[in-house]
Parts: sequence; C-alpha cells; structure tokens
Amino acid sequence: MIKAGIFGATGYTGLELVKLLRRHPAADIAFVASQSQAGKTLRDVFPAAPALPLIAGADAPLDAIDVAFLCLPHAAAAETATVALAAGTRVIDLSADFRLRDAATYAHWYAHDHPAPHLLAEAVYGLTEVYRAELPGARLVANPGCYPTSVLLALWPLLRAGLPIAEPIIADSKSGVSGAGRTPTQTSHFVEVADNFSAYKIGRAHRHLPEMEQAIAQWRAAAPALIFSPHLLPVPRGILSTIYVTFEKDVAEADLRDLYTAAYDGEPFVSVLPRGQTAALAHVTHTNRCAIGLTLTGRTLILTSAIDNLIKGAAGQAVQNMNVVFGCDETAGLE
Amino acid sequence: MIKAGIFGATGYTGLELVKLLRRHPAADIAFVASQSQAGKTLRDVFPAAPALPLIAGADAPLDAIDVAFLCLPHAAAAETATVALAAGTRVIDLSADFRLRDAATYAHWYAHDHPAPHLLAEAVYGLTEVYRAELPGARLVANPGCYPTSVLLALWPLLRAGLPIAEPIIADSKSGVSGAGRTPTQTSHFVEVADNFSAYKIGRAHRHLPEMEQAIAQWRAAAPALIFSPHLLPVPRGILSTIYVTFEKDVAEADLRDLYTAAYDGEPFVSVLPRGQTAALAHVTHTNRCAIGLTLTGRTLILTSAIDNLIKGAAGQAVQNMNVVFGCDETAGLE
Amino acid sequence: MIKAGIFGATGYTGLELVKLLRRHPAADIAFVASQSQAGKTLRDVFPAAPALPLIAGADAPLDAIDVAFLCLPHAAAAETATVALAAGTRVIDLSADFRLRDAATYAHWYAHDHPAPHLLAEAVYGLTEVYRAELPGARLVANPGCYPTSVLLALWPLLRAGLPIAEPIIADSKSGVSGAGRTPTQTSHFVEVADNFSAYKIGRAHRHLPEMEQAIAQWRAAAPALIFSPHLLPVPRGILSTIYVTFEKDVAEADLRDLYTAAYDGEPFVSVLPRGQTAALAHVTHTNRCAIGLTLTGRTLILTSAIDNLIKGAAGQAVQNMNVVFGCDETAGLE
Amino acid sequence: MIKAGIFGATGYTGLELVKLLRRHPAADIAFVASQSQAGKTLRDVFPAAPALPLIAGADAPLDAIDVAFLCLPHAAAAETATVALAAGTRVIDLSADFRLRDAATYAHWYAHDHPAPHLLAEAVYGLTEVYRAELPGARLVANPGCYPTSVLLALWPLLRAGLPIAEPIIADSKSGVSGAGRTPTQTSHFVEVADNFSAYKIGRAHRHLPEMEQAIAQWRAAAPALIFSPHLLPVPRGILSTIYVTFEKDVAEADLRDLYTAAYDGEPFVSVLPRGQTAALAHVTHTNRCAIGLTLTGRTLILTSAIDNLIKGAAGQAVQNMNVVFGCDETAGLE
Repeated sequence: MIKAGIFGATGYTGLELVKLLRRHPAADIAFVASQSQAGKTLRDVFPAAPALPLIAGADAPLDAIDVAFLCLPHAAAAETATVALAAGTRVIDLSADFRLRDAATYAHWYAHDHPAPHLLAEAVYGLTEVYRAELPGARLVANPGCYPTSVLLALWPLLRAGLPIAEPIIADSKSGVSGAGRTPTQTSHFVEVADNFSAYKIGRAHRHLPEMEQAIAQWRAAAPALIFSPHLLPVPRGILSTIYVTFEKDVAEADLRDLYTAAYDGEPFVSVLPRGQTAALAHVTHTNRCAIGLTLTGRTLILTSAIDNLIKGAAGQAVQNMNVVFGCDETAGLE
Repeated sequence: MIKAGIFGATGYTGLELVKLLRRHPAADIAFVASQSQAGKTLRDVFPAAPALPLIAGADAPLDAIDVAFLCLPHAAAAETATVALAAGTRVIDLSADFRLRDAATYAHWYAHDHPAPHLLAEAVYGLTEVYRAELPGARLVANPGCYPTSVLLALWPLLRAGLPIAEPIIADSKSGVSGAGRTPTQTSHFVEVADNFSAYKIGRAHRHLPEMEQAIAQWRAAAPALIFSPHLLPVPRGILSTIYVTFEKDVAEADLRDLYTAAYDGEPFVSVLPRGQTAALAHVTHTNRCAIGLTLTGRTLILTSAIDNLIKGAAGQAVQNMNVVFGCDETAGLE
Repeated sequence: MIKAGIFGATGYTGLELVKLLRRHPAADIAFVASQSQAGKTLRDVFPAAPALPLIAGADAPLDAIDVAFLCLPHAAAAETATVALAAGTRVIDLSADFRLRDAATYAHWYAHDHPAPHLLAEAVYGLTEVYRAELPGARLVANPGCYPTSVLLALWPLLRAGLPIAEPIIADSKSGVSGAGRTPTQTSHFVEVADNFSAYKIGRAHRHLPEMEQAIAQWRAAAPALIFSPHLLPVPRGILSTIYVTFEKDVAEADLRDLYTAAYDGEPFVSVLPRGQTAALAHVTHTNRCAIGLTLTGRTLILTSAIDNLIKGAAGQAVQNMNVVFGCDETAGLE
Repeated sequence: MIKAGIFGATGYTGLELVKLLRRHPAADIAFVASQSQAGKTLRDVFPAAPALPLIAGADAPLDAIDVAFLCLPHAAAAETATVALAAGTRVIDLSADFRLRDAATYAHWYAHDHPAPHLLAEAVYGLTEVYRAELPGARLVANPGCYPTSVLLALWPLLRAGLPIAEPIIADSKSGVSGAGRTPTQTSHFVEVADNFSAYKIGRAHRHLPEMEQAIAQWRAAAPALIFSPHLLPVPRGILSTIYVTFEKDVAEADLRDLYTAAYDGEPFVSVLPRGQTAALAHVTHTNRCAIGLTLTGRTLILTSAIDNLIKGAAGQAVQNMNVVFGCDETAGLE
C-alpha cells in the first residue's frame, strides 16, 4: 500500500483528496495535516467527512509516508516540499510553486522570491496525458492549475500538430466558486455570487496565464499569443473553457477531429465528444474526466472543454499522477 | 421633504434603504454613513448602487436630517440613537437594541448591558399593521426583526382572538442568506450554502425568540409557548415561516379565515391567500408584502407566511414606519 | 454475480441505480429499459451516463436476470412486477405500488384500482434498518418513498419505545427538485424554482402520508396523528425533515438519545449526530446515509433528519435491500 | 395617458411588461391577452402578479388602445401586428418577426415564410440608443433580441468608427434561463440547469446571429465576420457577453474609451465602466441598464457587456421605445 500524507487537508482540494484516497485500492492515508485546525478532526471542519485527527504540519511523521500531497498556499508548499524531499518522501504539489520553470517568472507573478529554486528543474509538470512518460518514479510533481488543465488538454492535440494559427488564441473560461478556495471573502459570499456572473482578471492578468504560456511554448516553436478571460459561475464546482483558435488558412473539421482522436483515443479520462456536441459541466462534475467538444466555424475552431476543477483540475489529477509515479493502474481510485 | 440619514449604509439592509428612499416621493437622502468604508462611495462597495459619498458616522450632520435610520450592529445602534435623539432627530432603528422592553432580557440574549435603558420605554415596536396607532410623531421606532415579522403577522389575528391553544406553537422558519448579513463567514460561503439546507439554533436558542415571545405575551394573557426553528435556505433573500397552532377544541376554517380578513382587509402590504393556497417566496421577494396562507388540518392550523427579509423584514417596513411617523401616505415609496 | 435489470432507467432514480450497480462488486446490469426512449442509449438521454442500449420494457429478457428494479410510474410498476414475478425474477419496486398494504387505501390515494392486490400481502416494506429480518430471500420488496424514509427513520426509535406522545406529530419536510421526477413541468422550471421556496400539499394531502401512517400504526398501538408539510427546496437533491414530537410529560434528552443509540448503533447508514448538532443536506448528499439530530426543548423533541432523496430515499436503499435479499454484504456498492 | 394592450402576457416578458407599465406615469394597461390562459387572471398564472383578467387575443379591443405590445411566438406576432396596424394601433413587437429586413433571410432562419413581408421596410429596429431618431411616431417597432442588445450596444461605438478589425469578432455570451421562455422543457428543468453550465448553438447556429450581422453590416461597409457562442447560465435572468475584437494595428485604450464616451455620455441606460472594471450581472439585473467594460490586451479589445435579458433585452427596451415613439420622457417608468 502507498502511504500518503495530506498537508492542507481542510481546504476543498484537501477534502476531495481524502475522499479519493479513502476509496483507493492501493493507497492509505497516513495522516491529514492542517496548520489552522490542528487538534480538531476533519469532521469538525466538514460535517460529512470522516473523523480523522488533524495534526500540525510541523508534527507530520514524514518517515511514515511514501508520498506527500501539498494542498498549501504557494510559498508554504515549496517549504514543505523541501523538507519532505529531504526526508526521502515523494511530493505531489497542488500549489503553484513548481509549475513555472523559471524562478523570475514565478517571482513576477507571485510577488515573492521562489523558496526553492533548485528544485524547479526536477519537477515534472503533471498534466498526466501529456507528460505521462516523465512521471514514473518522479520525486516531485507539480500538479497543474485547474484552468490550465481545462485549456491545455483542449489545445495540446492542435498545437503539437503545427497548424498555422492566426494569433491570438482566446480562452474564455468559466469556473465554479470552489476554485477560489474555502477562506470566506466578500467575493465568495453566497449573496454576491448567487444570481450573478462576472468576468475578472481578464486579458493577461490571471496567474494561470504564464503556466499556460509555458506549456504552449514547449509544444510549439513560434507560440501564438494567449488571451485568457476567467469568469465566476454561480455553481460550487466545474470549469468550462470555450476556446477560439483561428487558422491562417482553411482546414477540414474531420482533419482536426483526427488530431484529437489520435491524441486521446484510449485515454480513460479524456472524452472527445461526437460531432455536434459541446461540453457541459454535467458531463464531468464529480468525475476525473475532461470532455472536449469541437466545432469549426469558418477558419475558427471553437473548443469547449469541461472538467471538475476539484477533481481533474486538482485532487483527481493528483491521484492519477500518484498512480503513474508509483506504477499503479492509472485509473485506480478514480472510477 | 423628509431629510433622512442612513447609518450603516454598506450592509444589505442599508443598500435596500437607499434604493427605497431614492424613489420615495416625499423623502430625500441627506447622507449615507459607514464606519468601515468612509471616504469611498456606495458604488465602490456595491457596483450597481449610486455613487453617494460615504461619511463616517461621527461626522454625520444630525441637524441636517429629520430622521436617522440605523442599520448598525446592536449596542452601536443604541449609542448612535442616543446622540441622534439628543440632537432632535427621530430615529428608526433596524437593530435589535430597542425591540426588547426589558433591559435584563436584552442583557441575557445579547450578552451585553443595554447602552441606553432609559430609552426602552419610549421605543415603539414598529410592526406597522399592529402598532400603527402608536407611530405618528414617535421619536424612536424599533423596527422588528425579519423572522419575527413573518411569524408575528401570521399569529396576531389568531392570538388576539383568544381561542384556546394547546401548547406549544411551532414556527419552522426558513430564511435566505442575506438575513445573516454581508460580513463574509464560513457559513455564508457560496460553496457551503449552495445545494445545502440546514437547521440552526433551533428550539429556544435564536435571539429573535424573546422578541416574538414579548409580542405574544402582549396579545394574550396566558401566552402559549413558542418553539422556533430557523433554517438556512440557498437563496439570497426571503423568509417562509410554516407555523403550527393546535387548538384545544374543534374550530372551523371559515371562522379562522374571518379573523384574518378582519385583521388585514384593506391592509396594503398583507395578503391573506385564498383557500387552498400556501405562501411562497415568489409571492413577496422584492416587495414590502407579507403573504399568509391558512390550512386547517384536524385541530391544527398550518400558517405559511412569506416576506422579503430585506424589505418587509427590514428596510421596507422601516420606510413604512417612517411614512406613518411623518404622516405621509403609508405606501409612499413602497409600490 | 447478481444479474439486474432496470425498468424505467431514464428517470433520475433509474440513472442513480445505474451508477450504483456499475460499481457494485457483486452485481451486473443485464439491461436497462425505457418505454419512451427505447432504441437510444442512456448516454443519449444523460450525456454523462454510460452508453448502455435502452430496450423496450416489453422486450426485456426476464430470464436473464435475478432481480428487476422498477423505476416506473405507479400502476405500470405493479403490472411489470406481476410479469417479472411470474417469470421467477425477484422484484424491487421503487414506485408506490406495494408500499400500502390495503388496496382500498391505495385506490383512495392513487385514484386507481390496484393492478395486483394479490401481491400486497407478500411485499416486504424495504425500510432496511427496520425490516431487515424480513428481507432475505424476499420475492417482492416495496422500496419506501423518499419523504417516508427521512421521517420514519427519525421516528422509529421513539415510537417503538412507547413514550406517551401528545398528538399530533408534525413533520415539516423540505425536498430538492429531483424528488418530483424528470418530466418537465411548470413547477420544475428553473426560473420558477430558483430563488424560491414554497410549501405544497401540506397537512394531509400528500401521497406519502398514508405510507407513513401505516408504519407508525405498526409500531404503536394507539398511533399519534401525523401532520406532514412538504416544501420544495431550490436544490437538485436532498431532503431535510424537521419533526416535532411533544410528549405528555417531562422526558430527559439523555434517555431519548439512548433510544436512538440502541436503535442505530452499528448501523452503517444511519448517523445519530452528537448533542448540539442538527442535520443538513451537506451531511448526506451523494451518500446512502441518513443523519439524525435530536434537540429537546421543553417537552418537545425536535428531530432533524437528512437523506439524499435519490440514494437513501430511492436507488441506494434499493441496492441496500438487494444486498440483504441476496445475502451480500449490506454495504456493497454503497460506500 | 397612453393606452397599451399586451398580447402574450403570460410569458416572462409579458409579465415584466405588466410590471413596468403599471408603474409608468404616462401609460395604462387596457388589457392583457393570452391565447392559452384566456378566462383566467394573470394572478392565476403568476401568484405575485396583479389579478388582471386575461382575454383571448382575438377578443382584444384594438380600438381601445394606442399601442400593442406583442410578446408572441414568431409568425403569430406578424399576424397580430398586421391586424393591429390595420386597426390604427401602433405596434411594438418583441418577437423576431420584424427584426430582419430581408424576408428570405427570415425564411431561412425561421423555416417559415414571413407572414407580412410588406411591413418589413417600415419596421424601425428598436435598439433605442442607436436608432432613436427613427422612432418618434413610428407605427411598427421591432424590439431587438436579448443577445443582440448586449452585443450590439457594446460594438456600435467601435464599428461606426471604422477602425480596421482583423476578422472575426467573437461574442461569447452567457444567458440566464428566462431567455428560453416559460414553456417547460427538459433543458429548462431545474435539475438539468442547477450546478450546470453549457454551450449551445455555437458558431453560426443561433437565430440571433443574422440579426447582429444585419446591424453590423449597416454600421460598417466591409463588415467583419461574427462568431457567436451562446451559453446557458444557472441564473433566472441576465446576459453577460464577453466580446473579443482584434485590430489590425496597435490602438490606444484611451482612444477606444473616447469612442464609448462619445457614444454613450448622457445616455440614461448605458454605463461605460471605469478603467479596470468588467461588467457583471449584478450591475444590471432588475434594471434597464447596459453596463459595458473595456479592457485592451495587445491588439485585442475585450468588451464585457451586461444587461437584464427581460428588461433592457426585452420589456424595458420596449417601454423605452414606446416612450420615444409617443414623445414621453425616455426614462419614464424605467427608473
């Protein structure tokens, strides 16, 4: 059995990890840690959760685990990762700390020097379907952001194929409220969110932008620009990204569809929808799936890509990565 | 024109008051005050609100107004009321500070000595339909709580009639989230509220209980006991109370209905629903109305009573009270 | 493996059954049938469902299954049950057809002669925790209604104990919209439900009333009257019943709590909440659990009882019953 | 007083018109008509509405009114318009029947020959801010569609200015459920909509596309192509369109902002948001306002445009048009 420890277990992502790992046939939860709630049980925090005791992160027995999942704020995650790796534990980090390869880019977007720049080169970017080959045995996995997961899985088959794209690519993304975390704020107050819908940090302002740009640049020498417009949906969970890619010349929808079939045929967690269908949150919530729809209009391909932000966009993909790192069946605990 | 000042204008109740008074034909807003947001405009706080400048409560020109509306926390309200009354301004207090007649009861429920006990005797309890005769010219009006408004308007015709009631009366009330105020808390987080429904402070634990008991005791010598069970609804606004009154002997639904018709016939803001209909939030949200349904089952009368907690349960009833205090048409600004 | 057939698979309950049985370690789905959608696949109806072919009920191979789950309208269910039983298949009926023991009561409430009155005596009422002993080997199980499950599990420990109750018992129940089925109606239109909350069929008007009365009468010689007030919550799923039981004399909360511990200690799917806690939908949605809270106020016990109407209130309890009927682990497929 | 008749009063748009006209200082409702509900009152259909008697459209006294508002299905609207105009009544049509100037385009998109092609040339397209000069005294006004109102008000200042635009313009629009009407369908069922979000008829498939293209072609000789992607939001009302316009060369945000200020300065119902702000439904629901935000990213202008689909997108703009047609204050009844 894989022994897992969860740091930051009292956020929405941590809770989802607990649920997934408890039904995982090859993994056990060794401990759940929380800085703010140590001494309570998880059920004290979430009434429907199991009554696992919450310990302080500093007291966590790192020698009792094979893998540490970090559901911590950025910077704190890198510090815990450093300690855990030194103790010989593998780390799957759900924060942003190891997603960006370049410490200067990190410092720019997170207004903070990177706490462990020496680890950046080693981290594997855990977009499982794309970087699967690098995962087995990895010591440090940077679990992708929720928005990037929805956008990048939709773009990858296209971008790696090298079709000439008229800049820029537009990703108009809509996310449920759990994406903003569990700490109460004015913008997550029920009365502000219900019956409302709003855009925020549009254009080139959201921290998930450089993460997407980095992946795109890896896939494509002359990377097209990306415009990213997040919106806040009045739902608890789920992301739908509607993505517009305009080509420089005419393309056939069947040829585009072939690229997606080639990329995702046989993938257990990515569904390319039949012609004429578009993605919806209802396809994917409470699952580790990504559903992708393709609609060609003139020279513009409209991609609709849906995930559950807490599962494929966080805890589920983290478990998927753990499965690959440790050589389990990739779908274990996820179906 | 009646000159009005609003203290605590940046909560949901304050905002609703601003909306109502701006379209009131006989009232003007002289200022809006906020302790925490002074220096900003109301639009900085609520993007759809008018850009009125927010001043500090301490800087409010009391001599420029005829009436002060207090949308302040308890205790703070009593202190501002004292100053405002001393300056010759009438006060309509939307906090709990002047609802309970007895300073000891207040101290018990609010865990705080009453800041102005000498004013308690003077305050008129502003359940307009019941205490209308006491309002003209009143200096100090205690605007009722939202739950009590929905429960008491439903019970008044019955209780004043003196039918023998088997104890206890049960009020099972369900409220939208704005009733808990605008300060972000874990319990008002969208993800905690959406898709959820919960009971809280049931039995004899909620601060609105003594307010209801006080009114019942005024209407009825041997007052039946009251059980009050609040619940949190995943909607922004509205209260529906389902109230069970069991009589000691057989009664006729027609006779009960006559009591309600006698009490509310001609009332502009209370609708007794036709036989067979029960109240719903959709009857009343965004209005100053209270809709009351009557269903007799055996010896138990089931009352359903719906209001908008921010309007008839707060700002609307406050304006209704202002209209009566100043001798305006009672419906001015409310239709 | 238990071979199961699902009739009426394209409603919400049918879909939930498909989900549960597909992950059941000891059961397989042999077919899914639908009168209106035969020829399509389940995914054509629910985009996130598996692509199982939908056959017409009349074409269903009854000899290929061990158990038929009926998610059919009343009357249609009894007719299919008759055929299936004649073919030697066990039947778990999720409709109301075999819940009431008395054909005349059925005819009164359902405005329809019972299609198979000779089977009524044989049907086991599948409130699993209460009637577990009668289930092993049963040919015909009447799966309880969703409201009755939430109310009866809360009342059973109390009623069987014989404490003197002052009539009537009041069950103020609130249900999510899936309880009303998937057929579009004006009352299930999103715009009518969202931001709304309403009572309906209160008092003694809802068809689930006689089902509850029948159970109560079995548990208690002189059965107290029951008042049942259903309400429609703006959530997709979940029922919370707030139940008021007033005793004729003083009781101690600890003694009441002992009754519940005695009844449910060790039960995998019923949780008696700790003192001071009340039930919420968030305790139970997407699970087969029933959470019950106890609050004593004077002589009145306030019970809060929460279930997921589609799982413990329908498909989950049906699987739980199947497990007991066939001698599997009772929790198989349900955790 | 302007005497108004409302045809099709029992839909969401009709109800909203009734509310607006009842508080209009210069208009009276002469009758409300409904084909399906004649003989009932409006309150029978909407419990919170006034108890106006519903008459059959064929019985409507056209000589008693100055203006007929048509909230009818397409084709039916054109037929009623023909009769009403012949009777000397002005017509404000909220259906799609007179929005498209070309009968062949209408026949293509609505799969139906136009019932009154001779009236097409006369109809004024009632996008009030743009076509105000043509409205006074008009006999027939084609009230714009809800999506087109949100998109066109955002594009007009830009397109009439003639800046070189790289094709195509992308309008990613999100609408509340009332936009789909009040007739119950599977897609408007609460359980299908709540917690969900989906794209539909994206690309060039929605009937509002030709309406937008027609306007764009009027404003701009070489019209850029338009891609239109509607989405269904789990809210009752409101539209937010996020619109991407990419220029062929560099532009300055200040210059773009000047175009909007020039277009809308002094407009009572269009607000250009300050720099850095984006539009949200909360800016506009329950009002006749359109809020427009501008964000320049590289050479791409991201417009966010929010309206209430039932008010500025339907009934409110219809009243605004009536005000201009009859020479009233344009804001009468709308603030």
